[in-house]
Amino acid sequence: MEGRRAGRPRTIDPDAVSLVALRLFDDLGFDNVSMDDVAAAAGVSRRSLFRLFPAKGTMVWGGLAEFTERFRAALAAADAEAPTNEALRVAYRVAATFPPAVVEVTRHRLRVIRANPSLASTGAEHGPELRNLIGDFIAVREGTEAEALGVVIRSATLAEAATSALFWWAAHSDEPPEDVVDLALRIVLSPDGART
Amino acid sequence: MEGRRAGRPRTIDPDAVSLVALRLFDDLGFDNVSMDDVAAAAGVSRRSLFRLFPAKGTMVWGGLAEFTERFRAALAAADAEAPTNEALRVAYRVAATFPPAVVEVTRHRLRVIRANPSLASTGAEHGPELRNLIGDFIAVREGTEAEALGVVIRSATLAEAATSALFWWAAHSDEPPEDVVDLALRIVLSPDGART
Repeated sequence: MEGRRAGRPRTIDPDAVSLVALRLFDDLGFDNVSMDDVAAAAGVSRRSLFRLFPAKGTMVWGGLAEFTERFRAALAAADAEAPTNEALRVAYRVAATFPPAVVEVTRHRLRVIRANPSLASTGAEHGPELRNLIGDFIAVREGTEAEALGVVIRSATLAEAATSALFWWAAHSDEPPEDVVDLALRIVLSPDGART
Repeated sequence: MEGRRAGRPRTIDPDAVSLVALRLFDDLGFDNVSMDDVAAAAGVSRRSLFRLFPAKGTMVWGGLAEFTERFRAALAAADAEAPTNEALRVAYRVAATFPPAVVEVTRHRLRVIRANPSLASTGAEHGPELRNLIGDFIAVREGTEAEALGVVIRSATLAEAATSALFWWAAHSDEPPEDVVDLALRIVLSPDGART
């Protein structure tokens, strides 16, 4: 009914559009790319683009829910005998093992978020969610209160180390992201790493 | 020239107005308090209030620049012989030793920010500034690159531990904030603390 022209695909792949948009944002700067630019580069109509992504910022966020779900599932499946910190490190390795098809888009996503601090508020709910998952895991496993200072501090610093590692990877590294996250958590969790 | 009535003070103390505002925000919720409410409670005109604070959010932030300056000065004065992490912990203790007159307002401030994540973006520049101070300090002291993964991760986690400790203090503790920050950094920096 919408008058498709010959050659235009019937369905638009949001992931493909996101990748085009994030490449543009990363290369040219988020503020320098309009929705019209994205529509033109992705070969979709402005109307279709706005139906998929009601605002430019919504193209930047995405994939984080899957990260959190991998993390949650890995914690639920954690070895009951492993030390708590070891179980958390393994769960972060699982979470940071992005499907190969989304590694590149994830790199662009992280670079764009880092370059545009104002975007961070859009995804601000992800930080507390991960911290709460870690805090609850530690509290249950060690029979402490999730609100205790030690649990809050460990949760916040582990989550921060993993997040910083992912941003570092996006800017500096061609290694697999899960290896960089794993190394970062070893630095935080090992006395030698934390002291040198 | 503005027709002052008898009894109205000639100069308005921004700190006193902030305290009144932050108490209201903390007790009633940031979104439930208008600029008119603040002006009425503080006994100042709407016009004077807007001259001091052009937006409601600007009353929430404040005091952080002084925190950063205390931290910066303490790092500059750090014992050259002390281990890097020890020097950082001492500097954070200095920074978190708020002047007695601002301890209460700082508590309200932190509680309001924590309860309103959308406010966090307003003060988003403070986080990177502290992380960069720490990273540069470590890099100079240890002869490494500030961009190295280990330095970035240590900077980010130390800053996060101190920030989380301050928010925890504001919500849960009647101890001096510098003691809570100090304890949090010991948890992060000591192998026993980080592993239990």
